[in-house]
Amino acid sequence: MTKTSAMDLKSFIEDVPDFPQKGVIFKDITPLLADAKAFDETVRRMAEPWEGSGILAVAGIESRGFLLAAGVALKLGAGVVPVRKRGKLPRAVYAESYSLEYGTATLEAHQDACPNGAKVLLVDDVLATGGTAQAALGILERIGGRVVGVSFLIELGFLKGRDRIKGYDARALIAY
Amino acid sequence: MTKTSAMDLKSFIEDVPDFPQKGVIFKDITPLLADAKAFDETVRRMAEPWEGSGILAVAGIESRGFLLAAGVALKLGAGVVPVRKRGKLPRAVYAESYSLEYGTATLEAHQDACPNGAKVLLVDDVLATGGTAQAALGILERIGGRVVGVSFLIELGFLKGRDRIKGYDARALIAY
Repeated sequence: MTKTSAMDLKSFIEDVPDFPQKGVIFKDITPLLADAKAFDETVRRMAEPWEGSGILAVAGIESRGFLLAAGVALKLGAGVVPVRKRGKLPRAVYAESYSLEYGTATLEAHQDACPNGAKVLLVDDVLATGGTAQAALGILERIGGRVVGVSFLIELGFLKGRDRIKGYDARALIAY
Repeated sequence: MTKTSAMDLKSFIEDVPDFPQKGVIFKDITPLLADAKAFDETVRRMAEPWEGSGILAVAGIESRGFLLAAGVALKLGAGVVPVRKRGKLPRAVYAESYSLEYGTATLEAHQDACPNGAKVLLVDDVLATGGTAQAALGILERIGGRVVGVSFLIELGFLKGRDRIKGYDARALIAY
């Protein structure tokens, strides 16, 4: 691995208090995305642990995960697979629901999104409670993908999302 | 420009009849996204006309536009600016509404999404009626971006979306 002075990516993330609701501090990654060097370095470093490991597809979770997954896929020379909210994909899907604070949400991916046994990397912006990632992993396993890792930009450690995705090689560039 | 035999990107796009409603033929780009070489070539060719023109930010329209905008941004060495559906962005936004078949929808971008006068390229997957692109362009102009072009993967010529975005250098890789 090349030793270069890494950018301080955390300095590009802005805390926004009380969004989406009172008491929550939202991690706004848009300043990081808007900076060409920070964005390039972000996706390069999110891809780095899986370089040369034969990843065929990078699955990204709608919507912010799409921005990062597309970049990581290009860095790895892989395709990109959208894991979408319910009703957005036009062909036969596998679906998994997960709990939100109020009610549930559902993610879907096409049943033929990747070949059986293909090495897949899951990408999302934030590991929070882990519910979203867990649902996405369930779908990818049903598709027949061999999920070799999960790459997050941010991990909110205090929410213990890692407990929900045990057994997967999960990494995050920035931890809170 | 290097003369190489271009891939037939159209062959990766699947027609899905009656989605999202009866009588509509949906252009499913997920097979193109999932193929590493096709995806790389797609974003490279979407970026090509603006190479070396000093684009600072590539604006992508939620959600499918995010996948392409991120890739085009990396190819151009630019940052990426998300243009999102209403209520998703945490800080002060400019918003524009546009008509759908039933009712209206609203797009938003952060007011400080790019510096005043910065060269911006707008990216989306499909140019259909042009309403979405028109709304996004209105927002980018209010932010102070200097929109130098619009890059689509697909143009549905029969819907005459170009009429709504006159005066912009709009390109599409694939026309129907």
